[in-house]
Amino acid sequence: MDLKQQMRQLAEQSRDAARALAKLDTDAKNALLRAMADGIEHAANRIKAANAKDLAAGKEAGLSAAMLDRLTLTDKRIAEMARGIREVAALSDPVGKTISEWTRPNGIRIRKVRVPIGVILIIYESRPNVTADAACLCFKAGNAVILRGGSEAIHSNLAIAEVMNVPGLPTHSITVVPTTDRAAIDALLKLDEFINLCIPRGGESLIRAVAEKSRIPVIKHYKGVCHVFVDHDADLDMAEKIVINAKCQRPAVCNAIETLLVDEKIADKFLPRIGKALADKKVELRGDAATRQLVPIAKPATEDDWYAEYLDLILAVRVVNGVGEAIDHITKYGSNHSDAIVTKNKSTADRFLHEVDSSSVFWNASTRLADGAQYGFGAEIGISTDKLHARGPMGLEELTSYKFVVIGDGQLRE
Amino acid sequence: MDLKQQMRQLAEQSRDAARALAKLDTDAKNALLRAMADGIEHAANRIKAANAKDLAAGKEAGLSAAMLDRLTLTDKRIAEMARGIREVAALSDPVGKTISEWTRPNGIRIRKVRVPIGVILIIYESRPNVTADAACLCFKAGNAVILRGGSEAIHSNLAIAEVMNVPGLPTHSITVVPTTDRAAIDALLKLDEFINLCIPRGGESLIRAVAEKSRIPVIKHYKGVCHVFVDHDADLDMAEKIVINAKCQRPAVCNAIETLLVDEKIADKFLPRIGKALADKKVELRGDAATRQLVPIAKPATEDDWYAEYLDLILAVRVVNGVGEAIDHITKYGSNHSDAIVTKNKSTADRFLHEVDSSSVFWNASTRLADGAQYGFGAEIGISTDKLHARGPMGLEELTSYKFVVIGDGQLRE
Repeated sequence: MDLKQQMRQLAEQSRDAARALAKLDTDAKNALLRAMADGIEHAANRIKAANAKDLAAGKEAGLSAAMLDRLTLTDKRIAEMARGIREVAALSDPVGKTISEWTRPNGIRIRKVRVPIGVILIIYESRPNVTADAACLCFKAGNAVILRGGSEAIHSNLAIAEVMNVPGLPTHSITVVPTTDRAAIDALLKLDEFINLCIPRGGESLIRAVAEKSRIPVIKHYKGVCHVFVDHDADLDMAEKIVINAKCQRPAVCNAIETLLVDEKIADKFLPRIGKALADKKVELRGDAATRQLVPIAKPATEDDWYAEYLDLILAVRVVNGVGEAIDHITKYGSNHSDAIVTKNKSTADRFLHEVDSSSVFWNASTRLADGAQYGFGAEIGISTDKLHARGPMGLEELTSYKFVVIGDGQLRE
Repeated sequence: MDLKQQMRQLAEQSRDAARALAKLDTDAKNALLRAMADGIEHAANRIKAANAKDLAAGKEAGLSAAMLDRLTLTDKRIAEMARGIREVAALSDPVGKTISEWTRPNGIRIRKVRVPIGVILIIYESRPNVTADAACLCFKAGNAVILRGGSEAIHSNLAIAEVMNVPGLPTHSITVVPTTDRAAIDALLKLDEFINLCIPRGGESLIRAVAEKSRIPVIKHYKGVCHVFVDHDADLDMAEKIVINAKCQRPAVCNAIETLLVDEKIADKFLPRIGKALADKKVELRGDAATRQLVPIAKPATEDDWYAEYLDLILAVRVVNGVGEAIDHITKYGSNHSDAIVTKNKSTADRFLHEVDSSSVFWNASTRLADGAQYGFGAEIGISTDKLHARGPMGLEELTSYKFVVIGDGQLRE
């Protein structure tokens, strides 16, 4: 059997599993999730042995210390995976929930009710704990999942999936693609007949490659070029705290800011103090001419800097002529992810919140709050900057579709 | 400028129009819609003159009488277009509506609010009234629209769009692709940078071609292979009425049934009477062996008949062993569109409604009710059998996305 046939069979088996999964009730799913968590804990040594193979191969292949660290499964990380699964078991089940319900003049009763999506393909990079996290979220929402992690984590991922396929789980509910051949991804991305959704998680180049090739609907975000705009009506103490938090609290993530926009009316008051505060936090500044006059340590920003997702302690800074120019900047250079305004003026804030076309818009709060857990979703499978199906942080509800259930007593179309 | 550049420019202009449209409030949009309706009425002669060019070319090209009829714009059809636009003006505006709203323990207030999708590409076949219908629905939901109708209707479509671009409407809000070159579609379908959604409407081959080539998310249904299952606990008078309505009321549409499944326990009672009733309506029957024993006029059904979307007065008929076999048949041969059960038994109905994975499932009602107007959406842009974003009849809400608006007083990520 060649690779294409093998992937087709795998996807078809997942589709059959999805049909079986759709029949499970919440209690059955939660019991299986708790069994998975127990299984992960009991099999810690087996998982670590598989992980050791990946680590040995990774060292051989010259992976960086940071990459090897991401790849490593310690007892603590394994315990965290089990805890994560138990937390998902405790979340409310979206499947079967009524989204809305109404009766028509002819007497038919219509109920729009959540159902699983079917088969979800997750493509991700090195960290093997994603295998457990993604699999249990997809499963809780009644979906079968096909997992394709980084090739450097293949043994760890296969071991985790093996343990999660507990007795009583419909076969092929959780499948790790058993080959590191990249052609397997290309083959899977054509199988829209069996796979309903693809969620790629990782760097921009991985996600672009998936989006380009896929015939399956893809939910994604390429990058997070997030902004804070400090309006002339801002509380400058609050603005300083928000900028520092949004840039420094965890600079390597997508909802950290990359550009600070400062209203020219308060630039001379705000820029020197925020420049010093950021320098104290070891943030490299890249400013336009107006910024550099007030913050001499800032390097010159080029056009590329306004588009850049540094994911590092670097911040582009620009002085703008009010909220209108701030919105224009974000519209041109932003990535529609998460953007914030700091102001005491409600009408300025309302204009920003209305006109900035991003998945999350903030008034007087840090962009770092754009996150499933922070929004109260309990868990997050990813963040979408797309406009279809799901936008912003995606929780369990975003892993469901719906159907219309129509109940009558003989109604016909007139 | 070559065709690709031309399509890129067109799409970019639509994206800019979408940004302007997103700022219009409901009153402004409704006033523009009423102006469009007036414009259509006042320009009736101009539209008919453009339509006459298409009809002359169509006769020359040897279009069938049925196709020429679909292409023809009479005063009555033009008045209907104007009425349709006024009805859309009267519908509730989904944009700006709060979907849900909550406060987190740290005090941030989160509002999930409907926003326009952006730019929508509609690809459709001959009927020029679709130009007005689709354009006004997309516009009401705050979207720019790119319309690509059948090449045989190009003059009619351009004339309608010209009239709908009323004074005060942001330029390029409503664009008919000004060429009949098929390569224009291929070029547009790659422009996911500017176009957010593609809705193809027409025959299965058109839709498959679009889905295959598109890098833009596509919402679609390929076909409607819909079923009625008559359970042994059915009220047979009701069953007869539903089967006749679902098959005969308008056989050429996607929510008409193509296959009747009859529980073997009542086959000898129900099949002879429904066979006669259908024959009276000139329906050709194609049955399995058990059906043909009870309905001798039925022709033999082949495997292909179970997959067929006849869109005509033809019905495949099969005797099944209870609701389980009915569900299995629908799962194997159906198109996940609309399927009905007729029964007095609630637990049998519940099993059917739960396990049949179709966008609409009916208990004691005709599948012909699967329709935006019947569901109370006021209008319908299409029907989706996909699982992402929209499923079943799509109204104005399905032409929107959402954003998270987060309001705080200085909250940070801890």
